[in-house]
Amino acid sequence: MEMSSKLLEKAVAEISQLPGIGKRTALRLALHLLKQPTEQTQMLAKALQSMREDIKFCTQCHNIADTDTCEICANPLRDRSVICVVEDIRDVMAIENTNLFRGIYHVLGGKISPIDGVGPGQLTIASLVDKVKTGTVKELIFALSPTMEGDTTNFYIYRQIKDTGIITSAIARGIAVGDELEFADEVTLGRSILHRVPFENSLAK
Amino acid sequence: MEMSSKLLEKAVAEISQLPGIGKRTALRLALHLLKQPTEQTQMLAKALQSMREDIKFCTQCHNIADTDTCEICANPLRDRSVICVVEDIRDVMAIENTNLFRGIYHVLGGKISPIDGVGPGQLTIASLVDKVKTGTVKELIFALSPTMEGDTTNFYIYRQIKDTGIITSAIARGIAVGDELEFADEVTLGRSILHRVPFENSLAK
Repeated sequence: MEMSSKLLEKAVAEISQLPGIGKRTALRLALHLLKQPTEQTQMLAKALQSMREDIKFCTQCHNIADTDTCEICANPLRDRSVICVVEDIRDVMAIENTNLFRGIYHVLGGKISPIDGVGPGQLTIASLVDKVKTGTVKELIFALSPTMEGDTTNFYIYRQIKDTGIITSAIARGIAVGDELEFADEVTLGRSILHRVPFENSLAK
Repeated sequence: MEMSSKLLEKAVAEISQLPGIGKRTALRLALHLLKQPTEQTQMLAKALQSMREDIKFCTQCHNIADTDTCEICANPLRDRSVICVVEDIRDVMAIENTNLFRGIYHVLGGKISPIDGVGPGQLTIASLVDKVKTGTVKELIFALSPTMEGDTTNFYIYRQIKDTGIITSAIARGIAVGDELEFADEVTLGRSILHRVPFENSLAK
């Protein structure tokens, strides 16, 4: 698309580098910003820059933080003996939203995926194994997505820590609350029967 | 959504001000930037800022430009006696892409829409009327979207310039090339019969 302004062209090119945003959407966003007060664009640009430059990763769990230790790891009320292993900080937010977990997290930064060129070395697996080996951890909960890559990653970690004798668990896989049984895939349905729970425990709290 | 970083929260809040981008998408974009080299975010932020601060609007046609006069208005080969009236600079790009128009444009900056609080005063109608009254313009082509607001805007302008005696035309409304007749709405189909063209003119060039 030929544009009458190189400045606009440059902005559209940069915006369309973002995932899921094509040239047309980028142009729409750029034109939107041009119609708004200059301050909006300035605030957006500044927020992006300070986020990228000043954000820290928690030295304990690799969660995103504004200080060296994230709020969760710094909270004395959290149970440090239970670690929930997740792919991404979005998963931390999702689990925190449930208000049902009082342990701490370990953010891997992804999962092992040879197709995407992600090997164990690019994830924070080594620091997790070190943490487990200090002996203060009692349970590791694997909360990765139930995909082949998630299972591979779980198993890769499991092999390295199974000799320590800590409890390892994985989040339950089954029919989502509110879903119709007939639409569930057979693997999920099969597992939900295999891993059935006592009825009194199954009721929504 | 509670986030472990105020910097991230601020960035997500700013990104989600953009039209069509919700909190979840904004978070996904912010986390993407955090995974990329710092330079990408810096370049994005700078491109947005310089676009917003340095872009100009053509003093002739209100198209976006890097100089006071846009490339189209500055081009001596364009026919200054034919003005195509459009809502938006995106429409200029779309018509330029056809390579079939050699006149110049006038960008209104929107269309009259009382529901959205846009009156004639917020559009560049006055400068268009002035331009027509100088006497150098022979034809005005209305190329607004065929909606009620588009028609209202066309008619509002038409009333102010009809006494000058210049030719006024509107882009053809009809069945889109490649569309199936049976799926066309009846108003469009009706017009396409009413405004039929000589067969020899109807063939794709």
